[in-house]
Amino acid sequence: MPETKKLSLEPYKGTRDFYPKDQFIQNYIFGVWRKVAERFGYLEYNASILEETDLYRAKSGEEIVSEQTYSFTDRGGRDVTIRPEMTPTVARMVAQKRKELSFPLRWFSIPNLFRYERPQRGRLREHWQLNCDIFGVDSIEADVEIISLAYEIMKGFGAKDENFVIKLNNRRALNRLFSEMGLDEEKQKTFRRLLDKKGKIPDFDEQAKAILGKPFNANLEPDKETSELMQKLTKLGITNVVFEPFLVRGFDYYTGTVFEMYDTNPVNPRALFGGGRYDDLVGIFGVEKVSGIGFGWGDVTTRDFLETYNLLPEYQPPVKLYICHLENYLEAANQLASDLRKQGVNVAVDLTSRKVSQQVKTADKENIPFVLVVGEEEAKSGKFKLKNLKLGKEVVVNQENIISSLQIS
Amino acid sequence: MPETKKLSLEPYKGTRDFYPKDQFIQNYIFGVWRKVAERFGYLEYNASILEETDLYRAKSGEEIVSEQTYSFTDRGGRDVTIRPEMTPTVARMVAQKRKELSFPLRWFSIPNLFRYERPQRGRLREHWQLNCDIFGVDSIEADVEIISLAYEIMKGFGAKDENFVIKLNNRRALNRLFSEMGLDEEKQKTFRRLLDKKGKIPDFDEQAKAILGKPFNANLEPDKETSELMQKLTKLGITNVVFEPFLVRGFDYYTGTVFEMYDTNPVNPRALFGGGRYDDLVGIFGVEKVSGIGFGWGDVTTRDFLETYNLLPEYQPPVKLYICHLENYLEAANQLASDLRKQGVNVAVDLTSRKVSQQVKTADKENIPFVLVVGEEEAKSGKFKLKNLKLGKEVVVNQENIISSLQIS
Repeated sequence: MPETKKLSLEPYKGTRDFYPKDQFIQNYIFGVWRKVAERFGYLEYNASILEETDLYRAKSGEEIVSEQTYSFTDRGGRDVTIRPEMTPTVARMVAQKRKELSFPLRWFSIPNLFRYERPQRGRLREHWQLNCDIFGVDSIEADVEIISLAYEIMKGFGAKDENFVIKLNNRRALNRLFSEMGLDEEKQKTFRRLLDKKGKIPDFDEQAKAILGKPFNANLEPDKETSELMQKLTKLGITNVVFEPFLVRGFDYYTGTVFEMYDTNPVNPRALFGGGRYDDLVGIFGVEKVSGIGFGWGDVTTRDFLETYNLLPEYQPPVKLYICHLENYLEAANQLASDLRKQGVNVAVDLTSRKVSQQVKTADKENIPFVLVVGEEEAKSGKFKLKNLKLGKEVVVNQENIISSLQIS
Repeated sequence: MPETKKLSLEPYKGTRDFYPKDQFIQNYIFGVWRKVAERFGYLEYNASILEETDLYRAKSGEEIVSEQTYSFTDRGGRDVTIRPEMTPTVARMVAQKRKELSFPLRWFSIPNLFRYERPQRGRLREHWQLNCDIFGVDSIEADVEIISLAYEIMKGFGAKDENFVIKLNNRRALNRLFSEMGLDEEKQKTFRRLLDKKGKIPDFDEQAKAILGKPFNANLEPDKETSELMQKLTKLGITNVVFEPFLVRGFDYYTGTVFEMYDTNPVNPRALFGGGRYDDLVGIFGVEKVSGIGFGWGDVTTRDFLETYNLLPEYQPPVKLYICHLENYLEAANQLASDLRKQGVNVAVDLTSRKVSQQVKTADKENIPFVLVVGEEEAKSGKFKLKNLKLGKEVVVNQENIISSLQIS
């Protein structure tokens, strides 16, 4: 086959390859997410990364759909989108089984999401995101739990209270303020979008004035609902929470509490997680309303955070033992490996015919903690020199004692 | 917002929603895959679901790229494809770090893949697939291991030898046969594609004759390499293996052993897994060659198989205990839950103000094994009636004894 063009070795722009050491970190992050979510009784769900484009047109917000989605027409003429967020999907799923499902309902998922953006620190075109949601609880108790859950995940990662701050606001209170200011629905939307960009645009004050006809004065005191939420969180020992009058979140579907969490270290300026209440979203599918509140929590900012505070675990491969062999003893090595695997040990065998020293070097490079060599002597005697590559120590053991020797060292 | 069109409740055609009970099965399948792969020393990797389209043009095979992929142009003019298979990606990743990586290298991944096809039993537009690969072992030992690994996964699922059969062939032997028949490279490709469809098209014999100029007579005896592979597998106790002279596999990149595994029950006519050797694939990226062999194993056919043989585990949610509460005792219920969670128990609290009987009903519907109610008496005495919903039995326990009571029953 003629090669007309050199094939790229790189992943698609704004996406990542996860080599085993990167995947180890992903699995660590996903593991903490899953463990804490399940601790609170959340059930895992998932869906396809492709959805019909209409799903996002309804409520995600115009900027996301028209500028940031990966949308195309399939070979059968359907307009499809690679999901930019998970909330519309979970609302669709809840709506689909509205009558069969029992509420309250706690669900989580760890989907990957796509946005067409300029890649930069903390933001890529593809990222993975923990989504946790409660459906069917109208009261503030759900708001308290969902933020407690997020807080406990931070604790699960080993973060200290002073490392992060949770910012709160309330869309209902914002809307009341906007109404008092005499803004119609369209102007409210436009202004909300401007507020969402505050801090990123230098001429916010002028743009605000252009929309409002006068300078913008936010309510600097929290509304009643936000105050109550803060009190309840304080009672649970969650005190790194502040009222943020300019916080809106980008999505159109929020109806009440909105929140975001930030690293207190300015090296990571992007939110780690964010979410809010969306009591009208399930209803747009033409079924009876169900209230909802939830958050999305990204892997990219999380990894940056964990690196910043040195909270990542040291890399360890799942394989415990690497078995090397002399010529003609590969079969014996495979047999030993097979016996050990049946007893639950993760074992790899070097399948090459290289020198033993080179085989051992591979184990060392792969961070595998133990190595042993099978040759004539070992095959005859059933005794093996088990070497701990980290400590450089060697013990002679019978086959029956290999497993206990792997565990104690 | 005016709703001009009713929003669909369904997932995109040919894809699935995974409600918690479906996700439970996915997690079970992924868990067995991961456990056995790690038992053999394979390391997990991953990559983005989007790749530049050129990656597939090189070697995946024309039918896949021109008829079955989800390809489009991104907002920046790049031609991208949602991956239809994982092998080109893993070959790209190995090529990218060709000099840093230590060989032999054992990798696995559980990606989702897309093909534009007519959905039918065992075949959807999106499926998840275990991919296991060995790089850097030229000898037949890698072929033996990769098939042993697949066999052990079947055992891990609880399958019996008579439930499935592994079919083998060899591309090199096929190519030799084709050369002897005087076919040039183009005709070999065309004919290979026809062979791949044998069994699905009624006029195979006529079409074969049209390409070859005479009727096709396959080698009905296995070639030397396939014979040796079968002998080695037999020695390991893997005897449900047959030579299949018409087996080719759809991808152009295979160079040696090819294999597929089938359910022996005709209700599931599609392969559960398939793979082969592709010693030239890494080299097409312009780096020094590395040999490779691997397989892909789909979740759709696997679930069908496990259902057919009744091998799926019974559904169990991760949450062990559901705490209900009387009016004014939600705070006490939350406090109890928080204490238990700190000790490692998965606990959900009913956050609604419904009657206790309705709260308990939710726990029962969600298959949560234990329930208790917090009211005035419980809050005062510190004693709780812990109810096993499956057995209908109730025990009175102190808070300190809740955990042990959850475990013994």
